[in-house]
Amino acid sequence: MTGGAATGRVLALSGGVGGAKLAVGLARVVGAERLTVVCNTGDDFEHLGLHISPDLDSVMYALADKSDAERGWGRADEGWRFMEALGELGGEDWFRLGDRDLATHVERSRRLGMGEALTEITEELCRALGILPRVAPMTNDPVRTVVVTESGELAFQHYFVRDRCVPAVRGFRFDGIATARPSAPFSEALDDPALTAIIICPSNPFVSVDPIFALPGIEQRLGGRRAPIVAVSPIVGGQALKGPAAKMMAELGMPQTALEVARYYAGRRLLDGLVIDHLDAGLETAIRDLGVAVLVTQTVMTSVEDKTTLATECLVFAAGLETTP
Amino acid sequence: MTGGAATGRVLALSGGVGGAKLAVGLARVVGAERLTVVCNTGDDFEHLGLHISPDLDSVMYALADKSDAERGWGRADEGWRFMEALGELGGEDWFRLGDRDLATHVERSRRLGMGEALTEITEELCRALGILPRVAPMTNDPVRTVVVTESGELAFQHYFVRDRCVPAVRGFRFDGIATARPSAPFSEALDDPALTAIIICPSNPFVSVDPIFALPGIEQRLGGRRAPIVAVSPIVGGQALKGPAAKMMAELGMPQTALEVARYYAGRRLLDGLVIDHLDAGLETAIRDLGVAVLVTQTVMTSVEDKTTLATECLVFAAGLETTP
Repeated sequence: MTGGAATGRVLALSGGVGGAKLAVGLARVVGAERLTVVCNTGDDFEHLGLHISPDLDSVMYALADKSDAERGWGRADEGWRFMEALGELGGEDWFRLGDRDLATHVERSRRLGMGEALTEITEELCRALGILPRVAPMTNDPVRTVVVTESGELAFQHYFVRDRCVPAVRGFRFDGIATARPSAPFSEALDDPALTAIIICPSNPFVSVDPIFALPGIEQRLGGRRAPIVAVSPIVGGQALKGPAAKMMAELGMPQTALEVARYYAGRRLLDGLVIDHLDAGLETAIRDLGVAVLVTQTVMTSVEDKTTLATECLVFAAGLETTP
Repeated sequence: MTGGAATGRVLALSGGVGGAKLAVGLARVVGAERLTVVCNTGDDFEHLGLHISPDLDSVMYALADKSDAERGWGRADEGWRFMEALGELGGEDWFRLGDRDLATHVERSRRLGMGEALTEITEELCRALGILPRVAPMTNDPVRTVVVTESGELAFQHYFVRDRCVPAVRGFRFDGIATARPSAPFSEALDDPALTAIIICPSNPFVSVDPIFALPGIEQRLGGRRAPIVAVSPIVGGQALKGPAAKMMAELGMPQTALEVARYYAGRRLLDGLVIDHLDAGLETAIRDLGVAVLVTQTVMTSVEDKTTLATECLVFAAGLETTP
């Protein structure tokens, strides 16, 4: 790793599960006090009277080593008695909340109800879970991703979980974004003179990363960046490793390729380097032609070693880049 | 059983666990459409942002045959992952909420948050759980029992669960009672010309039954009753079978006897007959001297047969009584 990456601050922008994997790698490579992981909150929603922040939870559980690896979401050693009983009572059970997971939602909702901010609540939950890097919501203000589909507008979790991403996507809207302010940890990381890398985790560009970019002032502030932005492509060999990113691209009339991911970010001058998988090595030249540096490596993260290796490679790659806004 | 008890309506007034046992017996003896169980809601409280109605829950779980017999409270086949995880997060874990039990609180709280009334929510939960008799809160309005102790005033559950009934009791207050209105099922049962018996379950007189009596207008309406009031003494052999009733009596300077229970209700002309245990047969004459009829039988309910037998005996006893308001 270069000196810059070893001493500077790193800001990771993350959605849920895929982003959480790279966050785990970054947390092992970057000193805890130098890493800030900012999570999308456009997926947040109110359900059963509880405030649920799926992306924050995925990142927290992963960093606390409490994720369920097999299921791919939620907590390990999870139980489902609550869901069973809720079903018996005729409650809404399309969004599966594990018994352990529920504690996060109940405690967070209780604190929000008492007027505490999501940022402070997240910090305290992280402290309780022994998470050392700074994990923060992109904003304390309510932003709600609406998926515009051919069968009408759907709240994100209704599209994503209840309707299993079946309706064809026409576009997205982030309700509340116009008046949302970036959270203090996000702003502080952006303004930190020691910031040496901004990592866009392998998360869905449309519904995980775009809400973060869409916060008022963020694109302009990133335009004046001194630290390079490096993204890890969430599209590998024409497929999304997880989630509907590839399906969305197809429905939006975009080729389902890592090149298109580069084009999507670089078109707004929000990308200096893209990390793509060996499978997509053939796209390297075309991506470079967009003015985006390319690192070809293994981007599929299965083991902790995979996560650590990819994180290290991202940071070394970033350290060698000029910003090109 | 007499003809009256077989065809008339029965109204049971109940607290939590002890009352729930007799309610189970009554439900087996009285036709479902003729039994109304009205539960104390003075024990209700807001906890972790959820509305919890312990007495309603105890009665519902018992009638649905979902109570945990061994633990004596909560649901059978219960899990504790939620509590474990809440503890990890630094949440308040002095009030133990099982994973299954939690579904009731979350669903009830969600509906209350949407403006539904506790009576309707209870009816729907009962329908979902297959409970046939009518179970209702004493009121939809918030009433909160405050225990005045030598170490200050305590919200009921703080006294009861958190502080394990240790502080000596000086008295009780039912906040909100002055403006609380009896629930519709309670009023309808009281006004029903077919009402043939009012059964005070073996529940705590001070904190389970008194909040029900303290609702505006209830004592007057009971004063004009045509159906007899029969109570089952919660004090057996100088002990409360469950809970702090005997301890409270001692701290309030009352002898801890079934006679005192009779005196407590009869002093307000709210009792026609008292069912006492064989252990207390020696008190029979003294209770009769208060103008209260006495039935001596086995009041300790362990098996379903015990519950059914006691319920039958209560109804037959009531059917033979004149009202003596």
